[in-house]
Amino acid sequence: MQAPDALFELTERYLERLELDAELGEQRASMRYALEGGKRVRAVICLATAEAAGADLEQALPAAAALELIHAFSLVHDDLPALDDDDERRGRPSAHVAFGEGVALLAGDALIAEAFRLVLTYPTTAPARELAGATLGMIGGQYLDITGGDSDLAELHRLKTGRLLAASVGLALWAADVPECEQEPWREFGEELGMLFQVVDDLLDGDGYAARLGVDAARGLAREAGERAAAALVQIPVATSVLRAIVDGLVVRTV
Amino acid sequence: MQAPDALFELTERYLERLELDAELGEQRASMRYALEGGKRVRAVICLATAEAAGADLEQALPAAAALELIHAFSLVHDDLPALDDDDERRGRPSAHVAFGEGVALLAGDALIAEAFRLVLTYPTTAPARELAGATLGMIGGQYLDITGGDSDLAELHRLKTGRLLAASVGLALWAADVPECEQEPWREFGEELGMLFQVVDDLLDGDGYAARLGVDAARGLAREAGERAAAALVQIPVATSVLRAIVDGLVVRTV
Repeated sequence: MQAPDALFELTERYLERLELDAELGEQRASMRYALEGGKRVRAVICLATAEAAGADLEQALPAAAALELIHAFSLVHDDLPALDDDDERRGRPSAHVAFGEGVALLAGDALIAEAFRLVLTYPTTAPARELAGATLGMIGGQYLDITGGDSDLAELHRLKTGRLLAASVGLALWAADVPECEQEPWREFGEELGMLFQVVDDLLDGDGYAARLGVDAARGLAREAGERAAAALVQIPVATSVLRAIVDGLVVRTV
Repeated sequence: MQAPDALFELTERYLERLELDAELGEQRASMRYALEGGKRVRAVICLATAEAAGADLEQALPAAAALELIHAFSLVHDDLPALDDDDERRGRPSAHVAFGEGVALLAGDALIAEAFRLVLTYPTTAPARELAGATLGMIGGQYLDITGGDSDLAELHRLKTGRLLAASVGLALWAADVPECEQEPWREFGEELGMLFQVVDDLLDGDGYAARLGVDAARGLAREAGERAAAALVQIPVATSVLRAIVDGLVVRTV
């Protein structure tokens, strides 16, 4: 079993080597830029889940990378002036500042299509269907976010952050050929991860749950989500120590 | 064999009935708006090709609709201020004028993901792979367009317009279960359609080939592309009269 740090490195190497479609030409530079510097949370969850479920890591890398491409697309488009208008991302100028708005817009579009191309290298349509559903849910969450839908913060977060984190587990199951009838306990784990990740994010940013409920209550919520995720892991009859380490890391993360 | 007008109507009814992902919530209104009012050239080519290749039209409708979703996405994003900044589309306010830039941006993103969801209802990954490749090529063409890449106008158009028109034929072949070893003459036909469509478009808009070569030379180019497309059809050992009618209609179209 590989530790989360090793899975991070594996993702980095895979993304560096990843060949983007040649017809994109120079557009690829902006896509590579947008892909650099992430924490790879989704890829690491995907790889750790796949390995726990009995897959070779090689088998899960295209799925793990596809998740990071979808995540990168969402950040590039979120940062555009039409949405959050953020000039900085991951400590550098955001993509539209570095490449111009038009190229950044197209970079996000191309990252979506490349993510599907990657996940369509699997023999069945199941991984791509999982990714399509999660991407649509995520966009639904972004819509709630910009149209003042935070009256239901839990639903907004379940969609905007939770769908892709849950799909990190889901894609791993398909990559590991886990039959659908055995996927349920894994998927319960995936659902909890989204909540956990988002509450800690809000604590770090001082918004969302932290602003709504206060820091102490939000910390309690994060701890509970971590406990539920850990409890879901216990129901799965394989060695899940790396996934447990990822949960513990998410609870105490500071960046 | 259904005539192009009947195939257009079939597409309209299918798109009207099409259920978009529920998690998109109110976002769906902007997507429906963006889907309204097209000529459905890509869908009609797809359906006519599928029927000529022996498929039931029902079998090809998801593919035909997916092509229209990708086309609609490209128009919504092209119209944004970051790209062409067009306030009008199909005789109405463009999506970002009607719904705001943020919602229009997300509508385009969601149309891509919905297109994949549709084309992933086929039993194999082949149709979705065809769509991913065409979408990436199209985005590569858009990139050439905005970064002054029209030094090679033919390559720009092959990518920006031609890839999706060629995929209209390609998707039909997968929907009709035409074995890969029998697809070549069909695909030659698809390649010619792109050139034909674009030159006529330029003649109608007075730009591109028409501006570069003059109206008479561009008319000649359109006629030649139409003849090559018709010649490609003759090589295919099935009844292709509807496709021939589509070619003839593209040569003389005035909108």
